[in-house]
Amino acid sequence: HVNGERLWASLMELAKIGATAKGGVCRLALTDLDKQGRDLIVRWAREAGCTVNVDKMGNVFMRRKGRNDALPPVVTGSHADSQPTGGRFDGIYGVLGGLEVIRTLNDLDIETEHPIETVIWTNEEGSRFAPAMVASGVFAGVFTLEYGLSRKDVDGKTMGEELERIGYAGDLPVGGRPIHAAFELHIEQGPILEAENKTIGVVTDAQGQRWYEIVLTGQESHAGPTPMNRRRDGLLGASRIVDLVNRIGLAHAPYACATVGMMQVYPNSRNVIPGRVFFTVDFRHPDDAVLKQMDAELREGAAKIVADAKLEMAIEQIFYYAPIAFDKACVNSVRAAAERFGYSYRDIVSGAGHDACYLSQVAPTSMVFVPCIDGISHNEVEDAKPEWIEAGANVLLHAILERASE
Amino acid sequence: HVNGERLWASLMELAKIGATAKGGVCRLALTDLDKQGRDLIVRWAREAGCTVNVDKMGNVFMRRKGRNDALPPVVTGSHADSQPTGGRFDGIYGVLGGLEVIRTLNDLDIETEHPIETVIWTNEEGSRFAPAMVASGVFAGVFTLEYGLSRKDVDGKTMGEELERIGYAGDLPVGGRPIHAAFELHIEQGPILEAENKTIGVVTDAQGQRWYEIVLTGQESHAGPTPMNRRRDGLLGASRIVDLVNRIGLAHAPYACATVGMMQVYPNSRNVIPGRVFFTVDFRHPDDAVLKQMDAELREGAAKIVADAKLEMAIEQIFYYAPIAFDKACVNSVRAAAERFGYSYRDIVSGAGHDACYLSQVAPTSMVFVPCIDGISHNEVEDAKPEWIEAGANVLLHAILERASE
Ligand SMILES: NC(=O)NCCC(=O)O
Ligand SMILES: NC(=O)NCCC(=O)O
Repeated sequence: HVNGERLWASLMELAKIGATAKGGVCRLALTDLDKQGRDLIVRWAREAGCTVNVDKMGNVFMRRKGRNDALPPVVTGSHADSQPTGGRFDGIYGVLGGLEVIRTLNDLDIETEHPIETVIWTNEEGSRFAPAMVASGVFAGVFTLEYGLSRKDVDGKTMGEELERIGYAGDLPVGGRPIHAAFELHIEQGPILEAENKTIGVVTDAQGQRWYEIVLTGQESHAGPTPMNRRRDGLLGASRIVDLVNRIGLAHAPYACATVGMMQVYPNSRNVIPGRVFFTVDFRHPDDAVLKQMDAELREGAAKIVADAKLEMAIEQIFYYAPIAFDKACVNSVRAAAERFGYSYRDIVSGAGHDACYLSQVAPTSMVFVPCIDGISHNEVEDAKPEWIEAGANVLLHAILERASE
Repeated sequence: HVNGERLWASLMELAKIGATAKGGVCRLALTDLDKQGRDLIVRWAREAGCTVNVDKMGNVFMRRKGRNDALPPVVTGSHADSQPTGGRFDGIYGVLGGLEVIRTLNDLDIETEHPIETVIWTNEEGSRFAPAMVASGVFAGVFTLEYGLSRKDVDGKTMGEELERIGYAGDLPVGGRPIHAAFELHIEQGPILEAENKTIGVVTDAQGQRWYEIVLTGQESHAGPTPMNRRRDGLLGASRIVDLVNRIGLAHAPYACATVGMMQVYPNSRNVIPGRVFFTVDFRHPDDAVLKQMDAELREGAAKIVADAKLEMAIEQIFYYAPIAFDKACVNSVRAAAERFGYSYRDIVSGAGHDACYLSQVAPTSMVFVPCIDGISHNEVEDAKPEWIEAGANVLLHAILERASE
C-alpha cells in the first residue's frame, strides 16, 4: 500500500504553485511557475534517493536504482504543466503518484530487479506550445528534436529558448534507449467512471486526434457605412465553421468530439468588420476511419462556407495521431492490480491524449485512470476524492512491482 | 481656394506617426503616438498664429481670433486617433482640413467676424476606449465628465489616467459655451459617392447606433473526454449569435448594418471547451424604429440560442444614439459652397458616427464628405485622391467663411 495521505499532501503542496483564485492551477509549460514546480519535485526525488537527469527536451528522469541496474527501467510519470485555467490533478497526479511509488518502496525496503524512473514530460498540455505531448513525441521519435525545440508560443518564444531560460535544457539525448514497461497514472477527465461508480479505469485504448489551424482572410472595413452585401467578414465565416465543427461532432455521436477552443480576431475593434480570424479545431474519435471522414467533412463544409462569405482560407492539420491500442500485457498488469485490491474497475478508452500514447510506440505501455468529480477537467474546479487518488497509486505500485520484478 | 498641396503634405507628414507596414496608421487614442500626433498639430497651429487650449477631456481647441472676438466661434475639426489598422484620412483629414482653412485665411489676410476654432476631439474611434465620440459627447452634455474620464481600455487603464500620462489633461471645462456653427470634414468611409462619381457629399443625416457588450458563460471542460451532449460551449453560442446578428442586418436591408467586431475567448486554449466569451454588437439604421426592432430581434434570438446551448448570458447596451438630422442652414451652407465651386455633389446620410453628431445637439452643425477609394475605411489601404481632398477643404472653407462673416 502507498501512503495516501502523503501523496495527497504532496499534491496540495504542488497546487500552491500557480494556484488560482477559483481553486485551480495555472502553471503553463516553461514559465517561472513551471520551473518552481519542477524544482520542488526534483528536490523531493533527491530526498527519496533518486538520481535526476534532464534531456534536451527538458524531460526530467528521477531514477531509483534496480538490483540489476543495467536492465532497462520501468518508467512511470506524467506532466507538471497545466492549462491556463487548469486543475490540481491533471498530469501532476501521475508525477507525484510515481514519486509516491518510489517513496513507498523505500519505506518498505523493497529492491526491484529493474530500475524505476518517474518522469516529468515537458509541455504535455499543448496549451502554451502546440501540439500536445510534444516532448514525449520527440522521445518516441515521432517528432525531431529540432521540431520540438522550435515550437512557439503566441509571443513567438520557442520551447528551446524557454527551456534554457528556466534552466531545464538538459544534456541527455532524447529517447533512443530501451524501456522495459511504462505505466501512466491519470484522472479520467471524463464522466464515465464516476457515472458507473468504478474506482479504477483500465485504459485499453486512446482515441485518435487531428488538430487544425485555420486562418480566414476577408477585408477589414467600417462597421457603419459598409453595406451588408459588400462585406467580407472573417468572423462571420469563422462562426459558421464553429457551428459546422459542432455538427460534425454530433453527426458522429456518441464517440466523436469536435471543438474550437481558440480564436483570435483581427483587428478586434468594435466598429471594424474583422478582416482576419485565426482559430483551431480539435477532432477526436476512437476509429481512425471516422476521424478521416470528419476531416473530409470539415474541409468540404468549410470550403463552402468561405466561398459563400467571399473569404480566403488557409487550413493546416498541425497534429495527428491514430487511435492507440495499449500493450495487452501492461493492460493485464493494471487489471490484475485492481483485482488484487478488490477495487471496482472497468476497461476504458482515453478521450485525452497522454504521454503514454507516444511512449507506447517505443515501449510496452498502459495507463491507470481514476474518476474525477462530474467528469470535469481543464477547469479550475477539477476535483477528485482522496480515496480514488490513493487507489490509483496502489494499482500503479503493483503494476510497476510486477513488471520491475521480472 | 485652399492650398491643396500643403494640406496633402501635412496629411502625409501626420501619417508617418504610427505608420504601419501596409501603408496605414495605428495611432490609438491616448497612446504615445497619439501624443506625438497632437504635439505636431499643436505646433503647426501655433505657427499659424492660433492660441491653443485643452479641456478636461483632452479636446484641443486651436483658435483664430475673430474681428469681434467675443462672438461665439465657428467650430470645425475632427479626431486624430485611429483604428488599430486604420487609414491616413479617417479623422485627421477633418483636423488638418480645419487647420488648412486657418492657414488659407492667413495667406489671404482675411479677417472673420467670428473667431474660428479647429478642434481635435479625443478618442473618437471608440476602439481603445468604448464608446466612440465620448469626448465630444461630454462636450455636448450627453455624458458626464466622470463617465468620460473613467472609460477603460482592455488593460483597465482609464482615459483620465492616460490623458494625464500624455500631458493632455487640460484645465478648460468641457463644453457649456455657445457655438455659432459647426462643420466637420470627413471621408465618406462608404462606397456611395465614388460609385456615383460625386466629389462632395452634403451630409443631411447620420444613422442611429446601438452598441452592445455580451458575455456568455458556459463551462470549461476538456475537449477530448467531454461528450458532445454534456458540453456548455460558450464559443458555440457566441458563434450562433454572430450569425444571428448578420441575419438581422440582412433582414433590414438595404440600410441596416450589423457587425460583431470584437471577440475574446476564455481560456482560449486549443483543447479546452471555452467557458466564457465576450463579444460586441454594433447595430445601425437611419430609422430609429427599425433600430429598436433590431434590438428586440437580437434579445429574443440570442435568448433562444443561449437556452439551447445551456449558457448564461449578460447583455448590455453600452451606447445608443438616435438618428440625427443636421441643421438645415448649415447643410445649405455646405451645398451652396459645393455649387459655387461647380463640384458634383449629392445629399448623403452618414453611416459612421462623428463628433459632429454630438456637437449637433448643442450647436447648428453639418458635415462635408468626400469619397474614398472603393469605399474602404477602418483599413490600412484606406485612400483618397488629392483632388477630392482639396475639393472638400474648399467647401469647408466657404461654408465656414459664410457663417463666420455673419
Ligand atoms: N491529458 C490531457 O489533458 N492532455 C492534453 C492533450 C489533449 O488535449 O488530449
Ligand atoms: N468616423 C468613424 O470612423 N467613427 C467611429 C465611430 C463609428 O463607429 O461610427
